[in-house]
Amino acid sequence: MTDVVAGIDIGGTNTVLGLVEKSGKIIEESALKTADYPSFGDFVRICANLIKDLAKKSGVNLAGVGIGAPNGNFYRGTIEYAVNLAWNGIVPIARDFSDILGVKVAITNDANAAAVGEKIFGGAKEIDDFVVMTLGTGLGSGIYVNGKLLYGHSGFAGELGHVGLVFDGRVCGCGQRGCAETYVSATGICRTAVELLSQKREHSILRKYSFDELTSKHIAKAAGEGDLIALLAFDVTAKYFGKIIANTVAFSSPQKIFLFGGLAKSGDILIVPTKKYAREMCLESMRDTFEIEMSKIPSANAAVLGAAALIWEKLR
Amino acid sequence: MTDVVAGIDIGGTNTVLGLVEKSGKIIEESALKTADYPSFGDFVRICANLIKDLAKKSGVNLAGVGIGAPNGNFYRGTIEYAVNLAWNGIVPIARDFSDILGVKVAITNDANAAAVGEKIFGGAKEIDDFVVMTLGTGLGSGIYVNGKLLYGHSGFAGELGHVGLVFDGRVCGCGQRGCAETYVSATGICRTAVELLSQKREHSILRKYSFDELTSKHIAKAAGEGDLIALLAFDVTAKYFGKIIANTVAFSSPQKIFLFGGLAKSGDILIVPTKKYAREMCLESMRDTFEIEMSKIPSANAAVLGAAALIWEKLR
Repeated sequence: MTDVVAGIDIGGTNTVLGLVEKSGKIIEESALKTADYPSFGDFVRICANLIKDLAKKSGVNLAGVGIGAPNGNFYRGTIEYAVNLAWNGIVPIARDFSDILGVKVAITNDANAAAVGEKIFGGAKEIDDFVVMTLGTGLGSGIYVNGKLLYGHSGFAGELGHVGLVFDGRVCGCGQRGCAETYVSATGICRTAVELLSQKREHSILRKYSFDELTSKHIAKAAGEGDLIALLAFDVTAKYFGKIIANTVAFSSPQKIFLFGGLAKSGDILIVPTKKYAREMCLESMRDTFEIEMSKIPSANAAVLGAAALIWEKLR
Repeated sequence: MTDVVAGIDIGGTNTVLGLVEKSGKIIEESALKTADYPSFGDFVRICANLIKDLAKKSGVNLAGVGIGAPNGNFYRGTIEYAVNLAWNGIVPIARDFSDILGVKVAITNDANAAAVGEKIFGGAKEIDDFVVMTLGTGLGSGIYVNGKLLYGHSGFAGELGHVGLVFDGRVCGCGQRGCAETYVSATGICRTAVELLSQKREHSILRKYSFDELTSKHIAKAAGEGDLIALLAFDVTAKYFGKIIANTVAFSSPQKIFLFGGLAKSGDILIVPTKKYAREMCLESMRDTFEIEMSKIPSANAAVLGAAALIWEKLR
């Protein structure tokens, strides 16, 4: 029987899971609404049985379960105080899945899982020092150092989205101020656009949207039509992003930085100036030592592949 | 014959060297004026012969040479474009010392050497994830991850002093703006004090010093006497420092942060509020996962011990 690993991506809205072969091929996929399970015990039981049924149906052997989830702690196998999930406090998710399925279970946060996915299935197979940055609603990151994911003493290392970018800057959901993700993320670029609307006098289509209505897609579309405020919002965001990358280089000096997620797919309008600013704002001694690339993992499957890679990395 | 390692600390003004036993005992010490040797070849020859003579005089066997120097590159054994040294471009210092002395030679920058010293001889013997921050004229750092010093792809990783703290902030000697060391260092606190003098109206003894005259010692003395501006300069510096530490925790999640250097010895007036701010400004999930301590290496010998530790680490 072929060995497969179940990859589970737990988000505040949806949980997506799939059975993943060693090659990275996903042979089965399914999903459920996370919010439908306010009871953590119910969630684990339903989810584990779904995996069991999928494996049985496909006639494969389940070799392990990898989980990507907000505030997933690799060392303790727990989800701890995740604000977007209904389960309060600390939940022992690895142990509970393992009790039902009888296989090895590993967990980390979603951005770390994306980095492991890049290492095992993507563009970082031969690279020991790299960073994956995921630009969604927030800014996530996973950092590889010497060929290993950086968990740190607490198991929560690699939170570039909450490294300060602007001292005493924008209020962040984490309770701090000036965090990188309040500037560089889908919500960050919206805040920047609204700030620009307040500062400038140029006509802009973006003036027709309320703060609540405005999305990064509106800004991208307006920029494509030559809207000056929208173009400026991308340039300002690229400058912030360049600084985040320069800071990351000063810290761990990665060989490559892989970008991932919705905003990263804005394309040249964001990535070209980001590369320019990152290089300019980097320490001279490291200016030519890193490259910025798009993730090599197909985005539709990235979360499930990344979660599964957590186990495939151990089994190899 | 007892094995010893030569530790060499190369600074812009002085080069200090010593013969160090495995226990960390320094059996011989010497120094020379770096600036007296504009020729790199002369410097290496004089310095290597000094080491040879010291070893001969003491009847010990030279087992290797460790060097701490600005912009020292561990991978290539070079000093590269160090602005405070007279030798232009890239100099192959490890190879040249090795050619004369016939032993293994390793080099890194001074702050990294301090971190290796902390690991081999100081307070980090049993700790795998820690950071040493050296507060002198600038802010240096050495970062341990998984029991290894973080060199990164370029060999220059761990430059916390040049991670941005204030976006578009103070101009730094490196050419960038807002670098951490322009706020938290002996020169940084002077800039903060002068900025406060410009903003506030309170009487202060510090108003009697020119920018060029003012030192961190003047500020410490004035603070000890209850000078409001001086006290505020320490509090503002502690807040900046706390943020640097919180950023470092978000990045690599060290178990301990060791502080070292002149400004760090200001004592409670800086360290107590720094600990408070660092905790407050840290992500909640990591707030109780790190400790801030003074370096356990005697400061008089730290540079030489750190440099020697580079080799003792390999020989163990």
